[in-house]
Amino acid sequence: MNREELLGELSKVEKEYEELKGLGLNLNIARGKPGKEQLDLVSDIFDVLPSGSDFMVGNDDVRNYGVMDGIEPAKVLFAEILDTKPENIFVGGNASLQLMYDTIAKAYTHGLLHSEKPWAKLEKVKWICPVPGYDRHFAICESFGMETINVPMTELGPDMDKVEELIKDPAVKGMWNVPKYSNPDGIIYSEETINRIASMKPAAKDFVVMWDNAYCIHEFEGDYIPFPDILSACEKAGNPDMVFEFASTSKVTLPGAGVAVFACSPANMEYMKKLITIQAISFDKTNQLRHALYLKDKEHTLALMKKHAGILGPKFKTVLDTLEREIEPLGIASWQKPKGGYFVSINCYPGTAKETWRLCKEVGLTMTGAGATYPHGEDPDDSNLRIAPSLPAPEVVKQAMDVFCTCLKLAALKKLIA
Amino acid sequence: MNREELLGELSKVEKEYEELKGLGLNLNIARGKPGKEQLDLVSDIFDVLPSGSDFMVGNDDVRNYGVMDGIEPAKVLFAEILDTKPENIFVGGNASLQLMYDTIAKAYTHGLLHSEKPWAKLEKVKWICPVPGYDRHFAICESFGMETINVPMTELGPDMDKVEELIKDPAVKGMWNVPKYSNPDGIIYSEETINRIASMKPAAKDFVVMWDNAYCIHEFEGDYIPFPDILSACEKAGNPDMVFEFASTSKVTLPGAGVAVFACSPANMEYMKKLITIQAISFDKTNQLRHALYLKDKEHTLALMKKHAGILGPKFKTVLDTLEREIEPLGIASWQKPKGGYFVSINCYPGTAKETWRLCKEVGLTMTGAGATYPHGEDPDDSNLRIAPSLPAPEVVKQAMDVFCTCLKLAALKKLIA
Repeated sequence: MNREELLGELSKVEKEYEELKGLGLNLNIARGKPGKEQLDLVSDIFDVLPSGSDFMVGNDDVRNYGVMDGIEPAKVLFAEILDTKPENIFVGGNASLQLMYDTIAKAYTHGLLHSEKPWAKLEKVKWICPVPGYDRHFAICESFGMETINVPMTELGPDMDKVEELIKDPAVKGMWNVPKYSNPDGIIYSEETINRIASMKPAAKDFVVMWDNAYCIHEFEGDYIPFPDILSACEKAGNPDMVFEFASTSKVTLPGAGVAVFACSPANMEYMKKLITIQAISFDKTNQLRHALYLKDKEHTLALMKKHAGILGPKFKTVLDTLEREIEPLGIASWQKPKGGYFVSINCYPGTAKETWRLCKEVGLTMTGAGATYPHGEDPDDSNLRIAPSLPAPEVVKQAMDVFCTCLKLAALKKLIA
Repeated sequence: MNREELLGELSKVEKEYEELKGLGLNLNIARGKPGKEQLDLVSDIFDVLPSGSDFMVGNDDVRNYGVMDGIEPAKVLFAEILDTKPENIFVGGNASLQLMYDTIAKAYTHGLLHSEKPWAKLEKVKWICPVPGYDRHFAICESFGMETINVPMTELGPDMDKVEELIKDPAVKGMWNVPKYSNPDGIIYSEETINRIASMKPAAKDFVVMWDNAYCIHEFEGDYIPFPDILSACEKAGNPDMVFEFASTSKVTLPGAGVAVFACSPANMEYMKKLITIQAISFDKTNQLRHALYLKDKEHTLALMKKHAGILGPKFKTVLDTLEREIEPLGIASWQKPKGGYFVSINCYPGTAKETWRLCKEVGLTMTGAGATYPHGEDPDDSNLRIAPSLPAPEVVKQAMDVFCTCLKLAALKKLIA
């Protein structure tokens, strides 16, 4: 478009925007929470462990203290889902975020298996943050006072040339990853990326790959896509103790009441169990048993995920179709087209993410804050916005996307003309 | 007894002991776990939140993410039980031990509200441990490399003259307490002790009173004994931020699947919530709601505790009656006679706790390790042993106590004669 055409378009979009102002909207596509229909879908889980059930697992009554690392049926279930061995699985409480935080907290207070000393005794801890990424991961880094280092995501995962350069610094102690349907881009790490990560030789002997496999079975379109097991990849590459993998049923059963696990090498497991046994007698094994009975096995769990996809899929289709129709022809933004996960991530025209967010807010559409997908909330290009369509009803998603596209266009046009 | 009488008694007890050897016993009174009858008593809790329940609390669906500090009905319930305000209550996961560990871990990684710096940055952290005490408390101190300082328990609580002297050292950062039915002695802190604790002026501005009110409503004999609220006592004394109180339903509903809380001042709550929000989106609110519905209020909860007492009381009566009959006339050991809690603590004849434990083990009776009630497992007098009669059936408790008394006598007689 030439300047005149841009001005014409701007005037049209400004008019659309003024109309939105009058509607008194109150829309929210800010957080990756499942919607009520998904919660109702799985609420029969509350019926699988009534009084009078068999509460014994082997010699252990799940209602009593003990079995700190989790009951065997839960380990077996998660091992099958993550394609690893049951003995590599630690079953914890209701949230993988807590397990991730705790792993890093223990690195600070006690050190990891191969640490020379607790990280709290170090001058500086640096951490690799693929961007855009998950705000709660970055918040952990910030809370512990780490120096975060941004590495851009490519369509195949983090830019591994940059990562391989960064790990030569012994102060660089770890790296976040959401390897399948990355938060927020929805990118699946390529096999080459995974192998390069597994084969890294970081200067820090206690470097830790945080492998948040939050969306391991979370396709919302099409069939389940198998994904390489990071534990055996690291083992093969001679780095068995470099990785902790995390997963949960937060978006399989219930976000507030699921079961979370970490998976790691036998040596890491022995080390962590010695530390965790000081902290916990046991996690909620009745909920572990409830989940093992409800989800049964991987095949049965994947069938349940198809039902979630039946609810989520149309919402994501609305998001992607609207972007394709309204934005793609203009070339003012780019995005991945994920088939799983909980987000669509938009790279707005540079320098317009905050303004787009503000415009949305002003007419009643709440989105994840601009910058939230970067450490310290600082998006150097002021470009990335995250769309989370899972919680609202389909018609709300549709309305929200119309508003969003109008605001995205308005911000870009104003920038182009300025 | 003169030497000859002692030798006669020894010969009699040795014969009894030899007979025990032949019985092939396998008895265990080692840990304070509720027995199966208690678990069955409360298993109707599994029926109170079936599918189709009303999962809304105010505007929040307990099945979804959010409400990090716990749902209001659970706060109200615990506030009534602990005699404090709902806004002073943080409702966490299934175990108070995890909340206690986490409070101390945060002191190390981030510092407490009034800390100048995180404790990990300090040369030395010292901690007051009333002895005998709870092994899992002491294990936390050991895990973080604290210097533990033993303070003897009196019949009124910890020796406060010693405590008041110790807190003049700014490196002394905190103190464990099980103020009602102390683990293991079953002592109830006197009002004077409580007021002296609440009125302390420690040199360390971030000194923390860890108030593990594990047995706040856990009478196994007689009526509920009201107990002063430590939060308001500290507030009155000008120390509102000096205390964190902990409690759980582990021995009210289910040890593996209860709900745990901490209670603290508004300023501490604000500070801790800021830190915990990095670590957790929410705890299991469905289990919180299940508990609020099941326990209803303090009165209803106390009625349930009476039913637990109906199961526990006779076991404790067996322990205390056997000791009174077999040991009291000999004057070779002393013990409290608690009316609540989960333990009876025996002060054996000095220098015989380990030997008594060994003798028990040899004939098939497992007890908590001698020394376990002291930091680092070091009982300077080799005197204290802990009896936990809750888990085994009544007839097992009877048999175990007969064995225990024989071993206690045998060890004392051998010591007296040597």
